[in-house]
Order: sequence, then structure tokens, then C-alpha cells
Amino acid sequence: MRRVLAAALDEHVGEEVTLQGWLSQVRRLRGVAFLILRDRSGTAQVVVRDPGEIERVSDLRHESVLSLTGRVAPRGDGRPGAELVDPALEVLAAASEPPPFDLFRPTLELPLPTLLDYAPLSLRHPRRRAVFEIAAALAHGFRESLRHLEFVEIHTPKLVAAATEGGANVFPVGYFDRTAYLAQSPQFYKQMMVGVFERVFEVGPVFRAEPHDTPRHLNEYVSLDAEFGFIDDHRTVMVVLRTVMAGMLDAVRDEAARALALLEVPMPALPDSVPTLHFTEAQRLLQEMRGEPGPSEDLAPADELALGAWAKKEFGSDFLFVEGYPASARPFYTHPDPSRPGYTLGFDLLFRGLELVTGGQRLHRYEDYLAALRQRGLDPGPFSGYLQAFRYGMPPHGGFAIGLERFVGRLIGLKNLREATLFPRDLSRLDP
Amino acid sequence: MRRVLAAALDEHVGEEVTLQGWLSQVRRLRGVAFLILRDRSGTAQVVVRDPGEIERVSDLRHESVLSLTGRVAPRGDGRPGAELVDPALEVLAAASEPPPFDLFRPTLELPLPTLLDYAPLSLRHPRRRAVFEIAAALAHGFRESLRHLEFVEIHTPKLVAAATEGGANVFPVGYFDRTAYLAQSPQFYKQMMVGVFERVFEVGPVFRAEPHDTPRHLNEYVSLDAEFGFIDDHRTVMVVLRTVMAGMLDAVRDEAARALALLEVPMPALPDSVPTLHFTEAQRLLQEMRGEPGPSEDLAPADELALGAWAKKEFGSDFLFVEGYPASARPFYTHPDPSRPGYTLGFDLLFRGLELVTGGQRLHRYEDYLAALRQRGLDPGPFSGYLQAFRYGMPPHGGFAIGLERFVGRLIGLKNLREATLFPRDLSRLDP
Repeated sequence: MRRVLAAALDEHVGEEVTLQGWLSQVRRLRGVAFLILRDRSGTAQVVVRDPGEIERVSDLRHESVLSLTGRVAPRGDGRPGAELVDPALEVLAAASEPPPFDLFRPTLELPLPTLLDYAPLSLRHPRRRAVFEIAAALAHGFRESLRHLEFVEIHTPKLVAAATEGGANVFPVGYFDRTAYLAQSPQFYKQMMVGVFERVFEVGPVFRAEPHDTPRHLNEYVSLDAEFGFIDDHRTVMVVLRTVMAGMLDAVRDEAARALALLEVPMPALPDSVPTLHFTEAQRLLQEMRGEPGPSEDLAPADELALGAWAKKEFGSDFLFVEGYPASARPFYTHPDPSRPGYTLGFDLLFRGLELVTGGQRLHRYEDYLAALRQRGLDPGPFSGYLQAFRYGMPPHGGFAIGLERFVGRLIGLKNLREATLFPRDLSRLDP
Repeated sequence: MRRVLAAALDEHVGEEVTLQGWLSQVRRLRGVAFLILRDRSGTAQVVVRDPGEIERVSDLRHESVLSLTGRVAPRGDGRPGAELVDPALEVLAAASEPPPFDLFRPTLELPLPTLLDYAPLSLRHPRRRAVFEIAAALAHGFRESLRHLEFVEIHTPKLVAAATEGGANVFPVGYFDRTAYLAQSPQFYKQMMVGVFERVFEVGPVFRAEPHDTPRHLNEYVSLDAEFGFIDDHRTVMVVLRTVMAGMLDAVRDEAARALALLEVPMPALPDSVPTLHFTEAQRLLQEMRGEPGPSEDLAPADELALGAWAKKEFGSDFLFVEGYPASARPFYTHPDPSRPGYTLGFDLLFRGLELVTGGQRLHRYEDYLAALRQRGLDPGPFSGYLQAFRYGMPPHGGFAIGLERFVGRLIGLKNLREATLFPRDLSRLDP
């Protein structure tokens, strides 16, 4: 007997079919039991009238896995849709104990630690599952947008020899008789690969040993990275990024429509031309808003929120580019702004007031790298593999990195990034 | 001036265009210099006749990055195709020193350590680049085949709390004030996610602390994982795997045709019905071939080669399933064969005599897990997160894992898996 999904049951009225899934709920009335069965497509109602079978299903725990073969009939209560009637019931796997919370309720009202401790179970709730259907669609949209632009997918090592890019926030790994480190980003490798493929992208985990316990930090997350050559400047990168953002949002609309509807996600406004502020303009604007001078080296989360609100009010845009960050706020490989000493061709893309993407033009001349390292007091030795690419000719290039969980969280309006991660890793959490 | 790619030059005869890329070669004859410029599409010839410009290009080192704007003409030597004539030349980035080997030769004849030490440079060779264009196409085919079957992409943690699955071969990580481990596979997590999405896949790095220095071992590689529920038995998994294999090979044909042609890759024969041997039949066959009893617990690499040759000879197939491995050769979560004590519903797929894929049906009942762990003398404590999924009902399920580098290497005929990895990690190599 061919399996039919719950959501397609009403296409089979009058037929004998098999439903398979998890027992979500049992309601027993006089002489009849109603089962709600959940599968990946949704839920279906099953009507049991045989007295012996009613006893049997009444003993089943929620989340037991069942296979039910029976006749499909229009719903008996006159509501639209179909139900499965008088099925033969096979228990594929009985739940060993009752679930500690009800998965059949419209929302899971659980404290975050409980939600995460019980992730294998709580993720079965349709609202939790929907979060990750949206994540999968975003990742797909990222890849397809870039493949369409002739970018090549790469896989770069997560085990690296030196804690180079960001200083101290790296995890050490016992690697045979020496110490390796977990890559904080594929930055160096994706740049090197511009010399090979010109245009590359990678979807993969990155690791940050930041000892921060906040709703916006994860110690392991998924980074969507792109890098490409033969650009004019960072503005070329921003144009490609806007195209990729549009492709990601389109993919969510196309592939995760059910999840969007269930979570009532307000789809963002992404103008053809995303409003763009220079860092110094952003500072001036923030000072006007606050009536007092603010910090000048970087933007604080509150600043980003204020700028996001401004972009929405002034331009109806959920996205805002801030370009030209000061050199002091950016890594050594960032290309300086030739027309504005002290500032760079680095940018951030804010999404609803949250830094979602960091990008920019990079240095591309070997001498410039040596000078930039020297200026920051860094020894070029540990960078020799990276510098090799520049020693042998690299085009002007740039790229960006999108935090997948951040995008998911901000799009849906989750309060904590941990809710946008199947199995989050933080200061205190390594399991499940 | 819009950039034109080298491979499209002959579509622009008579026009003024810009070529951008790496200086691959310079030949200077009387009163003329011929440059070969390489970009991501291929190479193009550029003719320089101005005496001053000839001096200038003669000073340029190979691999310098150039932008050349000039007129496109039919090739002056009467051969088909076009060339760029009398261009204005801009040096985007000069190579700082001559490359230590010639990238313009048809093949790179380098010892493996040199090839890998100079990966940022050696990967620019078209034959090296082609390897990874094939890898990208295979990964794309894997994902699209599974998406088509309604599998959902997941991202599971690479930092895990316990060294559970495979015993000792894990890398320890200094994780704040405790020790974490790098995941050897997403096995436990993908199984748990069958309870959520029914059908899942993941493309990501896995880490094996195996102290083996052989051409077939890597300490970090890309695993293509799939897992799904509501199967009949391992044969359902094998059917899906065959579909995925076909989709991957189709993707290579469609998306990496140039790379296949350049490397003269013989595309494999994948029959609609892949020949399948039970492990005991494979043993009997090997004993017949050798005329002596062989090992009975697992297949050695030489055994796999012999079986691969047999499948090719008998069935014209480059693929061979071996099913029913002994329980002693498989992990605790492998489903036993109910009709054959001591054997399992685990299988391998051999590709040209190499184990390319491992898969099977898994246990799905909580009690069976407790018994299996007990039988192997394993404490269920560290498995509690994993076991939670089974405590609350899991369908019969199974899946498989494909080693991406193995597929690439075997498809192309590379002698060492390191050649199928952009930046391999082994006992002695963490850089570049």
C-alpha cells in the first residue's frame, strides 16, 4: 500500500491508503476515538470505531510512530477536508514514555533551556520545524544566486595552523603532537581561491571562542561566504550582495511558503537601490538623534537599531548599507579608502537594525599586505601560505559573509539566536 | 569598457573589448610580442606591436594580473579563433617574483609536497582547477537530487560533548573550561532530525584523528550525508542512493563538461539495477578468486578492488553494492538482519573497487538501543541526547554517507586523495 502524506489526504477520498507518522493527539468520545497523526506535511485526523482498537489506541503514548491503512472519507463533522476511517493500525515504534510537553498545541511555551535540552523532541513542533525550513531555503537561495553568477563552490579547511585573523578568540585543537585551531572564518582561503576560480562561495561552520553569553552570540555558526575578483571597488561587492539577498528572499518565498505563513513572517522590503550611508554620515545622524557626540570607532548594537529604524522611516527599507568603516574597526586585509585617509572600503549590511553581513574590498597587492601587517605589528611568518597568493598576482577583489542564523532569527523575529540553531553551542552548552 | 572572457573572444571580432586575467606566457619575436592571458574561462592570445609596449610586457613576470583593452581580430596565423590586438595595458597587480614552476604547460609535473606547499599557486593550473569544478558539480548534484525527493538541508554541530561514535579517533578541543571533540560524522544528529523532517541531508566537514599516512586517508574531509525515515529496510536506502549517484553524475556531465574533457575522465557505468552481493557471497567469491579462505570480518582494500573488477567484468558496472556486513564490523546503531543472526542491514557501495559510500538501516526502537549499547559494554550516559529521539518515537530509518574527495579522486583517477582536496590536512600538514 503506497504511503500518502497527511496534507494530500483529501485527494484520495474513497480510496484505501496508508498514513504514517507520529501520534500527536488522541481524543476519545463515546464509541469513537479520534487520532491526530503528524507527518512531515502536516496533520490528519483518523477515526477509530472498533471497540478493541479504541482500547488499543487509548494505551498509546503521544509521539509513538504509527502506520495506518484505511479508507479515506470526507470529514464526518461536515468541515472541509478528509479523514482516515477504521484503519488497520501498526505500531512502528512506541514512545517509551509520555513527552514532557504537548507537541499538539499551537505554540510551545517553554523556557529556552528546556526547549534546547529537549531539542530532538521540541524541534518536532511545526513552528520549530518551520524555522529550519526557512534556513534551508535561505542557504539554497544563497548558493543558487551565486551559481547563476558563475561562482564556484569551495570547501576550505576548518583546522588551521595559526590563530591568525582575529587574535585570541580561537579554539585550540589537539592535533596529533601539535596544536591546531578551528577556523574563525574561511576569509584567507576564499581570498586565495579568487586566484583560482575568480568567483567562489562556501557554506560552512565557523568557530568563535568568544566568552559572551548574549542572545546574539553563538560559538559555532553557519557562515555564507562569497569572494570575487576584478571588481571596481567595494560598491561592486555591494551590488552582488544585493542580488544575493534578493535571491535568498525569493527562495524563501518559493520554497518555504508554508513555514512563512505558519510563523506569520513579515517579508522584508529590499529596494532595488539599498539606502547607503558613509560611516561618518551614520555618526552624524546618530549624534543628531541623540543630541550628543557618540563613539567614533564603530557602531554599537543600539546605534544599528537606530539607523535601521531611520532607513525604514526614510526609505521604507529593511536594509541599510553602512560603508567606509574606520581602519581601526576593520581587519588588516581591508582595502583603505584612497580618497579618505583613516577610512576603508569595508561595509556592513544592516537588516532591521542588526549587522547581518560584513564585507568590503580587500587589499590585493603583496607589498600592501606586508605594509599592513607591519603597521599592525604582526609577524608575516604565520601568514606565509596566505601571502603566497598575493606574491603571484591577485586581482582587485572583495566579498562578504552572511551569518545564516542571524538572517533566520531577524527574519522571523526570534528573540535569541539559539532558537535559530538546531543544536546551539555556547559557553555552557555542548549537548545535545 | 565591459569585460569579455577569454573563451568568448571570438564572438567579438571587430569590437573593442577588455580582457582581464593572469599573464600566463609571453613570447617575443621580431617586432611583436604574444601574450597568453588566462582567466576563469580559458586563455586568449594578445598581440603587442608597439615597441614601447613590447619592452613593458617583456619586463612583466608570469602571473601578473592585467587589464587589456583593444580590438578583436581573427587570429593572424590563420588558425580559427580570435586574438586581441594592440591593447592598452594596465597592470592590476604585478607578481612580486617569478613563479617557481610554469603554469602554462599542459600538465604540472610536481612532487606532491611541492604541489601542496604551493597550493594557492598550483591550483591555478587548469588541470588542478578542473578537479574542483568536478567536486562542486558533484556536491550540487547530491543536494539537488535529494531536494527533489523532499529532503531538507540541515546544519549540525561540529563541536560535540563526547567522543562517542568511533572510540579513540577524535580530536579534542579546548572549549572554555572543558574539553569538546570534533564530530567524526553527523550520524547521531542526522538520525535525530529524521524525527523532525523525516528526510534530511547535510554537506559538511568531518574530522578523523586517524594517525594513518596513506594515499586514502585525510584527517578532515567533506561528508555528504543523507538520512530518512519510513523505509522498508536497507534496500529502500540503496534505491535512493542509486538515484542520488545518478543525479551526481548527471550534474558533473551538465556542469563540468569542460573539466571532464580536459582531464579525459571516463564517465562510469551506473546500471539501473546496481549489482548487489551479500557479504557472505562476496567472501565466497573472494575465496574462489584466491583459492584460499580470506578474512571474514570485513573487506580489505585489495578485496574491494577484486570485487570491483568482478562487477565490471560480469555486469559492466563501475558500482557494486555489498550488503549484510557482520555486526562486528559495524557500529552499534546498525540494524541487525532479522533473518541472519550475526549479520546486519548495513551496506557499502564500491565505486571502481573503492568503498565510496557506507550506509544501512539503523535501529529505531529505544529498547534496542539500550540493548545494543549494553551488549558492547557502552555506558548510555554520554548518549542521552541522542537516545532522547528514540525514547519519543522514531520510524524505521536509514541513510548513507559519501566521501566527496573519494568520489572526486576515484572518478578522475587521482593517485592520492590529497590531490582531490584544496588544502589537505594530514599527520604533517596544517598549512597552507
